[in-house]
Amino acid sequence: MSTADTNNVDGSSANRANLDNFDAEALTAEAQSLLEQFCRQPSIAAQHQGIAEMAALIEDALRATGFTTQRFAAPAGVDAPDIVYGELRGSGPYTMLLYNHYDVQPPEPFELWLSPPFEPTVRDGKLFARGSSDNKGEIAARLTAIRALRAAHGTLPITIRWIIEGEEEIGSPHFEQLIAPHADLLKADGCFWEGSGFGREDNPTLGLGSKGLLYVQLDLQGMAGDAHSGNATILPSAAWRLVQALATLRAPDGRITIPGFYDTVREPTEAQLAVVASHPDDDDLLKETFGVERFNDGLAGFELRKRYSFAPTCNIAGLLSGYTGEGTKTVLPAKAMAKIDFRLVPDQEPDDILAKLKAHLAAQGYGDIAVTTFSNAEPVVTPIEDPFAQRVIELAEAYAATNGTKPEITLIGGGTLPLLGALRRQVGLPGLSAPGNPTYWANGAHAPNEHIRLRDLRNAVLLNCHQFMHLEGA
Amino acid sequence: MSTADTNNVDGSSANRANLDNFDAEALTAEAQSLLEQFCRQPSIAAQHQGIAEMAALIEDALRATGFTTQRFAAPAGVDAPDIVYGELRGSGPYTMLLYNHYDVQPPEPFELWLSPPFEPTVRDGKLFARGSSDNKGEIAARLTAIRALRAAHGTLPITIRWIIEGEEEIGSPHFEQLIAPHADLLKADGCFWEGSGFGREDNPTLGLGSKGLLYVQLDLQGMAGDAHSGNATILPSAAWRLVQALATLRAPDGRITIPGFYDTVREPTEAQLAVVASHPDDDDLLKETFGVERFNDGLAGFELRKRYSFAPTCNIAGLLSGYTGEGTKTVLPAKAMAKIDFRLVPDQEPDDILAKLKAHLAAQGYGDIAVTTFSNAEPVVTPIEDPFAQRVIELAEAYAATNGTKPEITLIGGGTLPLLGALRRQVGLPGLSAPGNPTYWANGAHAPNEHIRLRDLRNAVLLNCHQFMHLEGA
Repeated sequence: MSTADTNNVDGSSANRANLDNFDAEALTAEAQSLLEQFCRQPSIAAQHQGIAEMAALIEDALRATGFTTQRFAAPAGVDAPDIVYGELRGSGPYTMLLYNHYDVQPPEPFELWLSPPFEPTVRDGKLFARGSSDNKGEIAARLTAIRALRAAHGTLPITIRWIIEGEEEIGSPHFEQLIAPHADLLKADGCFWEGSGFGREDNPTLGLGSKGLLYVQLDLQGMAGDAHSGNATILPSAAWRLVQALATLRAPDGRITIPGFYDTVREPTEAQLAVVASHPDDDDLLKETFGVERFNDGLAGFELRKRYSFAPTCNIAGLLSGYTGEGTKTVLPAKAMAKIDFRLVPDQEPDDILAKLKAHLAAQGYGDIAVTTFSNAEPVVTPIEDPFAQRVIELAEAYAATNGTKPEITLIGGGTLPLLGALRRQVGLPGLSAPGNPTYWANGAHAPNEHIRLRDLRNAVLLNCHQFMHLEGA
Repeated sequence: MSTADTNNVDGSSANRANLDNFDAEALTAEAQSLLEQFCRQPSIAAQHQGIAEMAALIEDALRATGFTTQRFAAPAGVDAPDIVYGELRGSGPYTMLLYNHYDVQPPEPFELWLSPPFEPTVRDGKLFARGSSDNKGEIAARLTAIRALRAAHGTLPITIRWIIEGEEEIGSPHFEQLIAPHADLLKADGCFWEGSGFGREDNPTLGLGSKGLLYVQLDLQGMAGDAHSGNATILPSAAWRLVQALATLRAPDGRITIPGFYDTVREPTEAQLAVVASHPDDDDLLKETFGVERFNDGLAGFELRKRYSFAPTCNIAGLLSGYTGEGTKTVLPAKAMAKIDFRLVPDQEPDDILAKLKAHLAAQGYGDIAVTTFSNAEPVVTPIEDPFAQRVIELAEAYAATNGTKPEITLIGGGTLPLLGALRRQVGLPGLSAPGNPTYWANGAHAPNEHIRLRDLRNAVLLNCHQFMHLEGA
């Protein structure tokens, strides 16, 4: 898609400059420079690395863009990174809340990265770095768009409120506690969450909600310390007990066998199925992207997309016991550990699933397994009929029409935004994963070699300009 | 047990000095000094650390004791550490072969060591270091005994041949290849393997054989790279497939469910069961040592010892998939790995068990799991009626009688000496885990805080003196 293709978008306010007035190449360079600055700063919430430094960097960038900023700090005795908050008053009454996070996933395993995760590197038109896609690229694109609009117009037509937290990748454990005293500052007509981006045909994508997440760690200790494996005849094996406990959670065919797990799963509606049916088949592309020959149960097309959207999961995210180094060690391990994440769909509730998991383990004779909860978030979905959602979809359609495409709407994403439950409870405004994130389907988020395409960064900046100029028309 | 208790052993040659002539405290100090020197040198075969340095240290120590030494080197193109060989001619025709290894198990996990694994540290009469018990302590005790006998008599009554390899802890993969060209140098009247030591009442222990070992690594790859766990609905999970494949190998009650696994297991004979029945109950001590409240299946006493001696195992020595660091990472792992060691009893054959494992995995739909074999050793047992075994038992009984105890005889140890099959094939002499190893039941071999008791080091030196003086009476 050439720059010219995207620059003639019909806005609702004819007296406001359209995208032709912007130098797309210069804006892309500016966004890339900002993004590289952000990505060079590690900010790993799970490992408490670089979080304070990243918060300062983000607050400085907001201030340099004209925002009035403040920190939402944890109360005394609570160890949680500040939330960075900024407000930029616009000329009209319409107010948008933006949500982002400044933390990233851990970079391990390092050896699979083709370039160091915190040294942004451009190869083949792509910028590689941990956080480039999830979600520092989005912060850079939004900031660049706002700077461009301020440069062109002085004042934006809408007020922008922006909240940027530092614990999203560990499940936003303190988000609600930190925003509760400041809920008035978060009032708006709608919220742009993180996420979404550009689809296969460079068409904007947007999402109306996310699955819930229950992330637990299971720990087993069979004896005081590791023993020589010659004792395996008579001493308990933590590794075997963990394997056998896990095997009771899920059948080999993939069905989750915790009693009652599916009880509250809501069947998709006709309207939802129609949206899923309207999506293109990405099967071959997905197979190539992930390096698989077939999907679970041989699913394809509509059935594959339906499963992706509406099925809950019980995923083993980590598994550890005994000796895992080079060669051999004949050891009977004293301990075994599994990390499990459940993705939940409406109307599953994480507390209910946790209780069912614990009851099941106890009933199967594994009551000695310690269950530690790391993340606990319910599924949140904005109805597709909501006026704010409809307005964003209209704008995305107008933008997409310039290159002959249509926005791709995701009803429930496979990922999870645990803060959405807190936002809904504390603020209550409609939200969505906004178009305008410079990511795409093969971005490697949460995996080695995370990256964005630079052409998506350009499109993201331009689409954000378009949205911020025209949203108040709702 | 005081030194005086052990010094009046009735030897078979009255004209030879008895143990009274030795300064037990000075010999213990000498053995401790040697042992500390050996333990300060890491020699981790699995990690290729310090092996060449350790071989040089051992060869120097043999030479300093009067041995004529040589190396059994790997042929060109084979990457294997040298075997150190030494011979010390005695005055009579009787010849003993000693076997030891100069490598040690990996020290991980470091954080559980109370003192660094390669900094020998004495606490509470115990010397802590990786390899102190398995088996550098035995080398130090044997060397010190031989030095003492040379100091007292100039020449020993028997010829000692000593073979010390560097890959025992990874299953002696090149042992047979390296000794085959030198089999003539290994001829002897009997062989003292490594192992055994002192029992609960400071009584000598000895072992007549060891279980076989099949050590395999199972590797599964589900897709090209790790993915965001939101994709777990549709993408294959290597971790789940590994867990579910493992769960087909062993029932929750501990029975191994690979078809045919038990087919060739020989029932223990009456004579064997009588030896097991003669052993004391160590149940409470073992429970305290390993920090367990009960043994598998609630076993106790005779039944516990019978299980320990005669049962084969399928042990998970290591398990790894996905993210295992601090906190959370919502990842769908592309790979999963398990290390499994099978301890085999007569007449199980490792090749047969490996074939049955592979056939079972394929039959269960897990034919895509890569099976890598690291160790492959058959069970080896010397009959208790063998004259050499009987002579060693007599000497041990005479030594034990000085403190009113009896030797403890183990028919089949829980551990494995993979080189025994090679020794049997190449040399064919009767062997046993000799009394005179300064180890005891709670030595932490293969685990953090491996150690010996200094009083066992003293007893080991004295018992070795006793044996080397009187073995030729057989």
